[in-house]
Amino acid sequence: MVRIGLIGTGAIGQDHLRRMTRVLAGATVTAITDVDAEVAKRVAEGLPGATVHATGEDLVADPAVDAVVVCSWGPTHEQYVLAAIAAGKQVFCEKPLATTEEACRRIVAAEVAAGRKLVQVGYMRRYDAAYRTLKAAVDSGEIGAPLMMHCAHRNAGVPGFYEKESIITDTAVHEIDMVRWLFGEEITAARVLVPRRNRNGGDLQDPLLLLLETAGGALIDVELSVNIRYGYDIRGEVIGEDGTAELGTQAEVVVRSGGRVASPVPLDWRERFARAYDVELQEWLDTVAAGLPPAGPSAWDGYAAAVVSDASVAALRTGERVEITLMDRPALYTG
Amino acid sequence: MVRIGLIGTGAIGQDHLRRMTRVLAGATVTAITDVDAEVAKRVAEGLPGATVHATGEDLVADPAVDAVVVCSWGPTHEQYVLAAIAAGKQVFCEKPLATTEEACRRIVAAEVAAGRKLVQVGYMRRYDAAYRTLKAAVDSGEIGAPLMMHCAHRNAGVPGFYEKESIITDTAVHEIDMVRWLFGEEITAARVLVPRRNRNGGDLQDPLLLLLETAGGALIDVELSVNIRYGYDIRGEVIGEDGTAELGTQAEVVVRSGGRVASPVPLDWRERFARAYDVELQEWLDTVAAGLPPAGPSAWDGYAAAVVSDASVAALRTGERVEITLMDRPALYTG
Amino acid sequence: MVRIGLIGTGAIGQDHLRRMTRVLAGATVTAITDVDAEVAKRVAEGLPGATVHATGEDLVADPAVDAVVVCSWGPTHEQYVLAAIAAGKQVFCEKPLATTEEACRRIVAAEVAAGRKLVQVGYMRRYDAAYRTLKAAVDSGEIGAPLMMHCAHRNAGVPGFYEKESIITDTAVHEIDMVRWLFGEEITAARVLVPRRNRNGGDLQDPLLLLLETAGGALIDVELSVNIRYGYDIRGEVIGEDGTAELGTQAEVVVRSGGRVASPVPLDWRERFARAYDVELQEWLDTVAAGLPPAGPSAWDGYAAAVVSDASVAALRTGERVEITLMDRPALYTG
Amino acid sequence: MVRIGLIGTGAIGQDHLRRMTRVLAGATVTAITDVDAEVAKRVAEGLPGATVHATGEDLVADPAVDAVVVCSWGPTHEQYVLAAIAAGKQVFCEKPLATTEEACRRIVAAEVAAGRKLVQVGYMRRYDAAYRTLKAAVDSGEIGAPLMMHCAHRNAGVPGFYEKESIITDTAVHEIDMVRWLFGEEITAARVLVPRRNRNGGDLQDPLLLLLETAGGALIDVELSVNIRYGYDIRGEVIGEDGTAELGTQAEVVVRSGGRVASPVPLDWRERFARAYDVELQEWLDTVAAGLPPAGPSAWDGYAAAVVSDASVAALRTGERVEITLMDRPALYTG
Repeated sequence: MVRIGLIGTGAIGQDHLRRMTRVLAGATVTAITDVDAEVAKRVAEGLPGATVHATGEDLVADPAVDAVVVCSWGPTHEQYVLAAIAAGKQVFCEKPLATTEEACRRIVAAEVAAGRKLVQVGYMRRYDAAYRTLKAAVDSGEIGAPLMMHCAHRNAGVPGFYEKESIITDTAVHEIDMVRWLFGEEITAARVLVPRRNRNGGDLQDPLLLLLETAGGALIDVELSVNIRYGYDIRGEVIGEDGTAELGTQAEVVVRSGGRVASPVPLDWRERFARAYDVELQEWLDTVAAGLPPAGPSAWDGYAAAVVSDASVAALRTGERVEITLMDRPALYTG
Repeated sequence: MVRIGLIGTGAIGQDHLRRMTRVLAGATVTAITDVDAEVAKRVAEGLPGATVHATGEDLVADPAVDAVVVCSWGPTHEQYVLAAIAAGKQVFCEKPLATTEEACRRIVAAEVAAGRKLVQVGYMRRYDAAYRTLKAAVDSGEIGAPLMMHCAHRNAGVPGFYEKESIITDTAVHEIDMVRWLFGEEITAARVLVPRRNRNGGDLQDPLLLLLETAGGALIDVELSVNIRYGYDIRGEVIGEDGTAELGTQAEVVVRSGGRVASPVPLDWRERFARAYDVELQEWLDTVAAGLPPAGPSAWDGYAAAVVSDASVAALRTGERVEITLMDRPALYTG
Repeated sequence: MVRIGLIGTGAIGQDHLRRMTRVLAGATVTAITDVDAEVAKRVAEGLPGATVHATGEDLVADPAVDAVVVCSWGPTHEQYVLAAIAAGKQVFCEKPLATTEEACRRIVAAEVAAGRKLVQVGYMRRYDAAYRTLKAAVDSGEIGAPLMMHCAHRNAGVPGFYEKESIITDTAVHEIDMVRWLFGEEITAARVLVPRRNRNGGDLQDPLLLLLETAGGALIDVELSVNIRYGYDIRGEVIGEDGTAELGTQAEVVVRSGGRVASPVPLDWRERFARAYDVELQEWLDTVAAGLPPAGPSAWDGYAAAVVSDASVAALRTGERVEITLMDRPALYTG
Repeated sequence: MVRIGLIGTGAIGQDHLRRMTRVLAGATVTAITDVDAEVAKRVAEGLPGATVHATGEDLVADPAVDAVVVCSWGPTHEQYVLAAIAAGKQVFCEKPLATTEEACRRIVAAEVAAGRKLVQVGYMRRYDAAYRTLKAAVDSGEIGAPLMMHCAHRNAGVPGFYEKESIITDTAVHEIDMVRWLFGEEITAARVLVPRRNRNGGDLQDPLLLLLETAGGALIDVELSVNIRYGYDIRGEVIGEDGTAELGTQAEVVVRSGGRVASPVPLDWRERFARAYDVELQEWLDTVAAGLPPAGPSAWDGYAAAVVSDASVAALRTGERVEITLMDRPALYTG
């Protein structure tokens, strides 16, 4: 059993807690903390033997904690991840790794100084069966070298706190990480084109077309539609020299009625990516239990996603093509 | 943690063991037995604290066992299930419940005498997301009352020990349980039609067309093709008064190359139903942990499947339509 | 220009007339007759130069008629087809070739006596692009030898004059001809199974499951649902030794809206088979123009379809398996 | 019968000739001319009663010609179309209407001066059943107002004479006309992005991403891949406020074999758009026969496509966004 300390018991924190206690094998949650101590206490009541800590730093230091899961508010991620690195404990940090490029750099520097990987960032798409099969198809060479990719990220609607730049920082960031992983290349430029506005989104600049370029010259277009009502739909097609590979449609049922043949579309990301979240955390727990370094998105990936996200925000603000330069990649993150 | 005693550590037994220790939440395997004591001992070495028992009966009696999982050879199922019922412990029994109608009747009688449900039988299709969505679509009424169903059960090939009647007893039996569950009706007649033989199957009578009738007059046709090479494919379409509902195709990727657009087909049942097995056992563990009676396929379902399977074998042998009469359904299994 | 005499100006007659004058190349309709002389006269007014004949026999004898299209009431087909054979003129006869087995035999005998093929019967499915591609896929050998076929023939509803046996004689007869053509084998037995009734069809025995066996032992099941409301849907999947080949779905558009991804289903046979009718008649006109014998469904095919249809009606009436024996196939219809 | 004069008997000219004489109803080709008089003569031999003319102008003037079909080399289109307008005869001109913006303006001016529409340009996609159904779905309002469109135009390969700008002028021009027609808006800006090169295309800049903006702010992205080997594939999805509408896949057959479920992809544009060419010319012939003005792509459409195509070429050359201004639209082309 891996003994887990959980920092943050908001929506995503409680969801990971449910996952670790009721869905996955091999974890026991032994310590909890939250900015709202009352919530932490209430949550801990359902967990026999779990202690409640006043701060994340306390929790990290608890000898009954083997590894840490960070689900707190984004701006606090840095301090807890750094604390875990300092303690030599593995840490799974929900995205984003940190909310500024500088904070990400500090985490990378700390991990490099520690001399080993301890951090994994919660980009769960890499654990989705469809994306994995897509990547395997591309890597198999059967479509030739990949040259372009068409993506679409569609939400039926967005919550009230969603702001103008959320469409990049909350939504597109998943596409950004996925593209880096799928192409195995860094993104070197971003551009955002703005079509006429969807009335469903009020004043929000929605939809957008995000255009990304990779170091090797691949071109990726990403439709971002976050108020399209019909459902939650994630699409992706890689264009190779000889063919293409596309995320399939995974309809569990086809109904013929009333003049049409139809399949349901997922309502939201929870429905679409439920299994990806499970697999992500199970694989992380398994590597922790085996004493292996994390195999998922690294601090470097978290840093790179942050830089590309920042550049995309700048591109949205200015209407210009924004070039992206990353710091040199430490040897810890190669190969 | 539900403390599980596992009877039988062959292929399916070890697979359930892996599931309970490495995939699912809430189980700890505390006791093991197998007809081959050496195998049981070797398996137990990987399970700290697990004891090895000389017999299934011993294992059932162990106070460190809360519930029992039976994965032994079919003809031994009856004795272990009866032992668990006698001990008042819940038991998950791999299909078939027992290998004769009489044995099934004895189990039903024992459970009825005990006055509460303790037995669940491993018909995992009811836990497959696609079948569940199909059933929900039918139950929603959007296709009107169901009148017919077309099914196909296709294997790329079958193992060497597969015999003439295995196509009914090993293969079609899954369709039989699924039809009973999906229509919510008993099956009252079976007929088997025999087309020309597939050379891939040598002397085996393959494919077959199994025709089932329900108490309410629904008609179900099941293509059984067990050497069709292209892959493992399970299909089903329910024909209603106003429309139809069909299992969808769940391709994770669509590849366009070499003049065609194509998706992969599963290789075998493990690939197709991996998640159904997980969900089946997790839900069973959850009900055991909650102190609730099992919600899955019951001893009655195991009995009914056995009777329909026997009738289908008779239909294959004789070429005739065979009528099926079940004993009266005890109140324990209604509602 | 092939000069066509048209016998019968009811719905299908006027549709073929429209086709020959407004859609296809190479035909000019020079002569018309109908049991209702007024209708024939009115139709002819739109055709400059066309003469109206009192009888079909007169029309056949008209030297300004190169070839004859028979669209009159079924029971009159025999006399007009025989007249055309006697005159040595090619004749395209709408299905059925004739309404009794004996009448079909007389036509076959007359054609054999004439020593050359002059008759084509209007089974248009052989001209449907999807069925042709299906047959090509089967003939290519890529699925191995065909062993079974699953078919479904679904109508949204049926007209008021539709009777108990129409479901065989009007509807299933298309499947019967298609199966003979696709498998290249005669049908040797028929059986009809009767599930519970669709309330949409009132007293009509609907749906049915028609089971056909071929000379070589292939087994074909045909779902006949003629009041299924959702639309007109024709499906077919051939089961081979190594794989299957299925009619594709030919959705021109896929709409994502309101929680689902959907495509329209054809309303009726006119929409589904419009092009097949065009191609059927164009190819017939082209062979007539080229002085070649007809290449489509022959008098033999019309005879065989009639016999299998009669047997299927008998099977529906009796509930029994009905064996089918055809007369010896004249050399004119081999190879 | 509409008496047609055909100018140009190269590949497309002979294809239209075949269409008018062997596929469609209502046309008779009475006059022919070609820059290569020998070819014209040879072609005319198969056409009883057809005269061969020395020049296109002679042909237009022939009183035995009701309407003209122009299939000659692009740079000669202008003179023949102007001659037809001058003669008051309807003219179907293969795309492009003319090879320069100025030439297109002269044609528009001539037609405006004539006071009635006489010209139709051969953009056949508007006659493709799938595109028509797509447009109907968009116009129905069920996806809300259209905001974006994703298109892909893929060729398996291109002929030897294909040059750097052909990818715009020969290939993308079809997408340009289609977008104007589907959105019912003019295109006001073009941009071309250049990903890394497909080795199959040698030195050719292939693929490209063409980005178009409409007067109302819709944004269209068009992938142009002309050496992608797997086949000819035309895709399009309109993104609306509430949903999307996409060209369907029109597989005639689905084959399950060798571990996958697959459908064929068309080999080339002839296979994909064969019917669209037929329908295009039949509808034009029908309007000519009825004495109605042409209902298809007008001289204005030809002019606008030329201007957008020129701007796209400039965008490809410069890498910049190029704004597009059309002349004022004459009243003849409104409503």
